[in-house]
Amino acid sequence: TVAGLLKKAGYRTAHFGKWHLGSGPGAPMPDAYGIEVSKTVNSNDPRWREDKIPYFRAHSTRLIVDEALEFIKQNLDRPFYVNLWTLLPHATLDPTKEQLEPFLKLSPQTASGHLGAHQIYFASLRDLDTQLGRLIDELDKLGLKDNTLILFSSDNGPEDIHIRNASHSAFGSPGPFRGRKRSLYEGGIRVPLIARWPGKVPAGRVETRSVLSGVDFLPTLLKIAGLPEDATLGLDGEDVSDILFGASRGRRKPLFWEWRFTIAGYNINRSPMLAIREGDWKLLLNPDFSRVELYDIPRDPMELNNLADRRPELVKDLAAKVLAWQKTLPPGPIEPAAGKNDYPWPKD
Amino acid sequence: TVAGLLKKAGYRTAHFGKWHLGSGPGAPMPDAYGIEVSKTVNSNDPRWREDKIPYFRAHSTRLIVDEALEFIKQNLDRPFYVNLWTLLPHATLDPTKEQLEPFLKLSPQTASGHLGAHQIYFASLRDLDTQLGRLIDELDKLGLKDNTLILFSSDNGPEDIHIRNASHSAFGSPGPFRGRKRSLYEGGIRVPLIARWPGKVPAGRVETRSVLSGVDFLPTLLKIAGLPEDATLGLDGEDVSDILFGASRGRRKPLFWEWRFTIAGYNINRSPMLAIREGDWKLLLNPDFSRVELYDIPRDPMELNNLADRRPELVKDLAAKVLAWQKTLPPGPIEPAAGKNDYPWPKD
Repeated sequence: TVAGLLKKAGYRTAHFGKWHLGSGPGAPMPDAYGIEVSKTVNSNDPRWREDKIPYFRAHSTRLIVDEALEFIKQNLDRPFYVNLWTLLPHATLDPTKEQLEPFLKLSPQTASGHLGAHQIYFASLRDLDTQLGRLIDELDKLGLKDNTLILFSSDNGPEDIHIRNASHSAFGSPGPFRGRKRSLYEGGIRVPLIARWPGKVPAGRVETRSVLSGVDFLPTLLKIAGLPEDATLGLDGEDVSDILFGASRGRRKPLFWEWRFTIAGYNINRSPMLAIREGDWKLLLNPDFSRVELYDIPRDPMELNNLADRRPELVKDLAAKVLAWQKTLPPGPIEPAAGKNDYPWPKD
Repeated sequence: TVAGLLKKAGYRTAHFGKWHLGSGPGAPMPDAYGIEVSKTVNSNDPRWREDKIPYFRAHSTRLIVDEALEFIKQNLDRPFYVNLWTLLPHATLDPTKEQLEPFLKLSPQTASGHLGAHQIYFASLRDLDTQLGRLIDELDKLGLKDNTLILFSSDNGPEDIHIRNASHSAFGSPGPFRGRKRSLYEGGIRVPLIARWPGKVPAGRVETRSVLSGVDFLPTLLKIAGLPEDATLGLDGEDVSDILFGASRGRRKPLFWEWRFTIAGYNINRSPMLAIREGDWKLLLNPDFSRVELYDIPRDPMELNNLADRRPELVKDLAAKVLAWQKTLPPGPIEPAAGKNDYPWPKD
């Protein structure tokens, strides 16, 4: 793990916020991942008990930032690595009255006073933004501006309103992309990545060509920390530090995705089970070839023009790669409806 | 109009509920359409003042059904034609506590007690269903079962959650179709049509092949009423009474659509400005040919496989027809973004 390797190299390591890497009998604790200090929810050691505290989630980003700042202040003389995993904007969103106040004027205006999903979502997101702003300001005040890399990202696209605990709040947008959370279409897997490191990461640059992924964090952070690259051998990610620092280039390794379960919401968002991105091309595939979709992503980012039957050789090549990768994955349950987008049409 | 022609033939005609065919200076009143008795909202004579009565909309279907039944009881000795245009499930939905009660257990469970969009939508729809059930039961009790045709339909697909007054409630589903309200994709234009006429319309039949449209109501109802067909000459619709009574067949005339404004919500739902359906084929087109999409609807009901470049002759033929039809439409404003689905991508 990133934390484990950095810890070995003398970094102090911490994790604050959501865990969700496993809980229940036998699930490893954060120290098994190289984390020295932690305070978590969704874990085997939830010192924050979300279910016991009304509006905990609405306050959680502030509390997580507080913990991170406290840890950083205690370790100013050492290199440090901190996971700051917020609960927001994950459902269930329930902003406080104070957080909602700037958005009350956007009400759908019912006699019952229902709040619109956009109001609930905007209020929650604004607090996330405010608290991360506070984190950055404090880091700067502590004199850490020039030697702290901040990476901001997410693990998936926006939640769907058909999910019960998001049924009042699922206003997050995938922009122009097809799919939402769980889908392997771009709307489910294309997420923000914001990097800040004054003097190293060019300010204000929006990189539209290079393709980066969460699997790149480990090789990239090891490289930046000056650690030997042998720990990254055989991993899916690649060192993309040059891209963070200003380069624009194609990636050296393909990216792979698998989703073993059904996908909530509209059929049009339900992708096949597997996906591979290599260069400009993305192939989505069920292992039994019941669905085969090939898209030229830069020219068709909405994934509407399936070119699979025009490029059979490319399909064959990409399918072989993603199916070989799938064989390397750990076993586990696969839902029968995974990768399907059938609809229960009326019978003639 | 249907009402005007039936009135001439001796029918008593009435309209209860939403009007929305124009209000403001010079807008014709219901009698200009052949309607003798009316009580409306969204009109120049709103004897129901929605804006003055909290929860009016939640009670409106009951009130509309009451008016219709009252009118029918007063005209039992005469043939009658009644428009019963409900406000539900159109936004703004605001069901009463009593209507919500059966759905409270589906709450997203926040400390604030927000209702999910599904709860608000289901509660509203259930009252619509209940009131229409009451209408049918009363008609049967009045002895009108065997000589009353009931047609139930809608004017468009479900509203989008990005529309402010639906931002707490837009849970209506287009099923597997692409698009919602305003879109010319199937999710925007494919609507329910339920017909009831015991002994004439086969009970429980689900017709999956014939294509009917609202423009067919006039020729179909004239035919069923035994009126001469010359009034229907030159109109877009066709007599589909044979389909209501059990036939399954292709239609004789194409269907056309135009939408001159932008389309709310996700880019993927934003259709071109014009559409034509002829046989199995649907062409979607901007008048300047900036977007051309051809779908084989029975085999691709989700409109994901654009076959335009494989069938250039068919595109040419259908485009000529829809563009000729467009020229027959009255003038009016066209938004510059109509028919576009561009996204403000970041610039390189």
